[in-house]
Amino acid sequence: MNNKQNLLETFENEYQDRDYFIEHEAPEFTSVCPKTGQPDFANIILEYIPDQLCVELKSYKNYLNSFRNDGIFYESVTNRILDDLVEVCKPRYMRITAEFNIRGGIASVIEVEYESEED
Amino acid sequence: MNNKQNLLETFENEYQDRDYFIEHEAPEFTSVCPKTGQPDFANIILEYIPDQLCVELKSYKNYLNSFRNDGIFYESVTNRILDDLVEVCKPRYMRITAEFNIRGGIASVIEVEYESEED
Amino acid sequence: MNNKQNLLETFENEYQDRDYFIEHEAPEFTSVCPKTGQPDFANIILEYIPDQLCVELKSYKNYLNSFRNDGIFYESVTNRILDDLVEVCKPRYMRITAEFNIRGGIASVIEVEYESEED
Amino acid sequence: MNNKQNLLETFENEYQDRDYFIEHEAPEFTSVCPKTGQPDFANIILEYIPDQLCVELKSYKNYLNSFRNDGIFYESVTNRILDDLVEVCKPRYMRITAEFNIRGGIASVIEVEYESEED
Amino acid sequence: MNNKQNLLETFENEYQDRDYFIEHEAPEFTSVCPKTGQPDFANIILEYIPDQLCVELKSYKNYLNSFRNDGIFYESVTNRILDDLVEVCKPRYMRITAEFNIRGGIASVIEVEYESEED
Amino acid sequence: MNNKQNLLETFENEYQDRDYFIEHEAPEFTSVCPKTGQPDFANIILEYIPDQLCVELKSYKNYLNSFRNDGIFYESVTNRILDDLVEVCKPRYMRITAEFNIRGGIASVIEVEYESEED
Amino acid sequence: MNNKQNLLETFENEYQDRDYFIEHEAPEFTSVCPKTGQPDFANIILEYIPDQLCVELKSYKNYLNSFRNDGIFYESVTNRILDDLVEVCKPRYMRITAEFNIRGGIASVIEVEYESEED
Amino acid sequence: MNNKQNLLETFENEYQDRDYFIEHEAPEFTSVCPKTGQPDFANIILEYIPDQLCVELKSYKNYLNSFRNDGIFYESVTNRILDDLVEVCKPRYMRITAEFNIRGGIASVIEVEYESEED
Amino acid sequence: MNNKQNLLETFENEYQDRDYFIEHEAPEFTSVCPKTGQPDFANIILEYIPDQLCVELKSYKNYLNSFRNDGIFYESVTNRILDDLVEVCKPRYMRITAEFNIRGGIASVIEVEYESEED
Amino acid sequence: MNNKQNLLETFENEYQDRDYFIEHEAPEFTSVCPKTGQPDFANIILEYIPDQLCVELKSYKNYLNSFRNDGIFYESVTNRILDDLVEVCKPRYMRITAEFNIRGGIASVIEVEYESEED
Repeated sequence: MNNKQNLLETFENEYQDRDYFIEHEAPEFTSVCPKTGQPDFANIILEYIPDQLCVELKSYKNYLNSFRNDGIFYESVTNRILDDLVEVCKPRYMRITAEFNIRGGIASVIEVEYESEED
Repeated sequence: MNNKQNLLETFENEYQDRDYFIEHEAPEFTSVCPKTGQPDFANIILEYIPDQLCVELKSYKNYLNSFRNDGIFYESVTNRILDDLVEVCKPRYMRITAEFNIRGGIASVIEVEYESEED
Repeated sequence: MNNKQNLLETFENEYQDRDYFIEHEAPEFTSVCPKTGQPDFANIILEYIPDQLCVELKSYKNYLNSFRNDGIFYESVTNRILDDLVEVCKPRYMRITAEFNIRGGIASVIEVEYESEED
Repeated sequence: MNNKQNLLETFENEYQDRDYFIEHEAPEFTSVCPKTGQPDFANIILEYIPDQLCVELKSYKNYLNSFRNDGIFYESVTNRILDDLVEVCKPRYMRITAEFNIRGGIASVIEVEYESEED
Repeated sequence: MNNKQNLLETFENEYQDRDYFIEHEAPEFTSVCPKTGQPDFANIILEYIPDQLCVELKSYKNYLNSFRNDGIFYESVTNRILDDLVEVCKPRYMRITAEFNIRGGIASVIEVEYESEED
Repeated sequence: MNNKQNLLETFENEYQDRDYFIEHEAPEFTSVCPKTGQPDFANIILEYIPDQLCVELKSYKNYLNSFRNDGIFYESVTNRILDDLVEVCKPRYMRITAEFNIRGGIASVIEVEYESEED
Repeated sequence: MNNKQNLLETFENEYQDRDYFIEHEAPEFTSVCPKTGQPDFANIILEYIPDQLCVELKSYKNYLNSFRNDGIFYESVTNRILDDLVEVCKPRYMRITAEFNIRGGIASVIEVEYESEED
Repeated sequence: MNNKQNLLETFENEYQDRDYFIEHEAPEFTSVCPKTGQPDFANIILEYIPDQLCVELKSYKNYLNSFRNDGIFYESVTNRILDDLVEVCKPRYMRITAEFNIRGGIASVIEVEYESEED
Repeated sequence: MNNKQNLLETFENEYQDRDYFIEHEAPEFTSVCPKTGQPDFANIILEYIPDQLCVELKSYKNYLNSFRNDGIFYESVTNRILDDLVEVCKPRYMRITAEFNIRGGIASVIEVEYESEED
Repeated sequence: MNNKQNLLETFENEYQDRDYFIEHEAPEFTSVCPKTGQPDFANIILEYIPDQLCVELKSYKNYLNSFRNDGIFYESVTNRILDDLVEVCKPRYMRITAEFNIRGGIASVIEVEYESEED
């Protein structure tokens, strides 16, 4: 597990016999543009079907906050968040949608999905 | 039947020969976080296709109000409401969507479904 | 034909060789709760694919107004409107969506569909 | 070609090897109710996949304006606009959605579709 | 490569083993109507699944700005943007939606899609 | 006191040493047009500064409901509600704003004020 | 009285001892541009404090409809409506706000007021 | 100081030489109707100009939460919150606006103000 | 008169005996940033009380379009538009509000007023 | 001048003979709560009437960004921004409105004003 993954805590899913959706929308994500050094802002939407583990909400907030002073591109940060959460929670299905604020008159959205092979 | 299920009353579905949808949206749900003791707030959306029984609206409101001082997690309360209503109404289909207010900058939604086996 | 059905007038569908949708949204529906005697309010959405007959709009308004002082439950009035309109218009497809105002902190929607067997 | 069709002009579709959508939304349509003589108002949404011809926008506006003092029913005008445009443009697919303003407390929508047989 | 394509820069997609969506919405697009010489305004929405290359955002903004004083029709500019981006990025899937401001009381949308043959 | 005024109940204002505002917004008001016999619908906004008495909310609802089958004009019903409430509550200040639904393409608002002479 | 003023009917104001506001909002006004012959569309908001007379609503709608095929400029039609209504109703105060739809990318509002000298 | 006032903590206003506004909007207030035992819900807006003391935000939240199971009327709770805060903070100016959810089809707002005599 | 002022045409105000408001809102203004060469976009709101002359709408549009390729700062362009219009129309009162799109995460508004000395 | 003030650059106001408003709205402000170490987020609205100097927009953005990792309270940061800008620009009038995101279910706004003595 990498450093950021260590920030993520989980708890046992009590309803494993049933597929159900969990969504956490975090409109206060911020990181730094590696090219210009200027701050980036995004709304991060996490949707998943848990298997054995659920993401603990406060640890997830701390995980997102850990990007605050990191220089990282839109595409990288969105894929990175998916990879870290899949590694830690091993969900049946997961999707990350990152809606970035306007830069140079352009608003961007990155959307990445994961589906477990057994599903 | 558990204590909360006893609060739920039903009436006979007069249109059993037809599949149709009933939705009750309750934006005033509140319970208590078992960790922090702070109140949680949610909009609870119940959608179902009745079989022989419909949920009586006033008893459903009393049922939801009974969680007011209970300490219970997001995932548990949503699955619990589904289980209680399925037990009492035995619907053809039912879905509970619980939209929780922002906590620590993050808004959460839990969505759970039930489909009767004969359907 | 029952008394309320007699209020409904129709005109011939000039475009029977083509399936097309007609929607009439009536946000001013009101009836009376049979339990409490208090007025209920709803937005009634009628969607249908006509066969040989279309509902005449003014007669439909009068039909809806005829419920003004009737004591009738949400589920009954919605199914009743569908049954009356199907009986009079014999459409290829019809759906009634009744969106009721908040009562006791809860807003309700009832949605009923009809599909003709030959369709 | 009838008189109204003569108002419609077309230009050659430069991208015939590709299916793509064109939508023109005209919120200022007005005609006259043939029963009451009162003006009707609608938002007319035209969506189509062009084949060899596209509708020229200014001529389409003039075509819609030609209904200004015509007495014509909701269902007729919507089907009529579809028929005229299909006759003149011979599209691969076309849909007309006419959203009429509230009359007698009721708002109406008529939606008609055409699909070419070779499509 | 034509002159406008030369403005577009790309960078390597680090997550080629996964299909994911990128969307860039540019509400400040403007060109000139070739008939009247009057300016046109549009919101250009680019959605794509990258293969080996992603579009660099600043170069994409410069590419869109290069149309500022060009006389070009709605249908042409939308298809042209798709063709240029497909040529340069060779994506797995791409869609351009151009939402043009009201002209003569009518708002227009053009939507063009590309799907790679191997996909 | 007339018949409708008898429906209105009051309770003592506990904070008479202070001017403060009370607003009750009732979006479900309905009466009947004395000319056409068709139902009218309005949102009734009551704002007042209480003196010795406050309007009891449930009795106020019953008072408004008593107009349900009365034939009465917009201007009359608005002035009438003000007069009845002033008679019963004797407030320091009161305003009634009645926002009527669209009839014949026109939405109407009537706004009437009362200020006590000693104020 | 000119021809259009003859269309306006009035009824006696029953509450002349009190200043109160009446507002009629008519979003379906249409006339014709005298220069281009193209239709214009506006939302006409009439606000007034009646003296001895109120405008009868249906006659006001017919009055507004009488402009449908008249060629008249924004500024003229707004001042004209005020002048006609003042002549016929002799109100204590009156304001006409005319909100015209976008033409050539520009939306226009004209606002004219009248105050009686004795007020 | 009463029991609830003891929950409120303050901190010193560092900018006493300047009048400035502080607003805290709390959309999650809930108490209980003393008549029916049913829960009430309100959005509480506190606006004030501090003198020597500012309200500490977390203690203010706890103060509001302390009403959760209290039976108290709309008018009382709003005046009570103002009185408690004035007692503890001694502000130059303060206003409480309490916007209560729909009950029996009626939404209510209570607005109370305080101005210090020396101001 | 400078070059841009020559683009502005006027017509005689037929209602000079009365003060009234004219507003033209132009959401499609664009010029160029003199520092970066990047396009700027603004919504220009012109409000005025005419004296002897009104601005002709089409010439005003052409006047605004003449800034399309000019390099000019926010503050300058807003004051310049006011000065040019005052020079040409000599209004009793005029206000220009320029709402600029987000640049570097910041949206800007400039608001400039003129009042004639005789007013 | 303190360290943060050094980040602010100005340019000469070309229109000093006229009072006019400049507004810059910065929805991406973020600092850190000195108590909890958690990030705070705000929309900072700066409104002012310039005297001899205007704030340069890019330097203002850098100034706001300099608070990103500072621990500072709501009231302090809002007053601090006003003081720094007044010191550097010496405006005729200035107002800072800081709208902070929801924390513990409560959204906060701080509004501070400055008026020059000679004004």
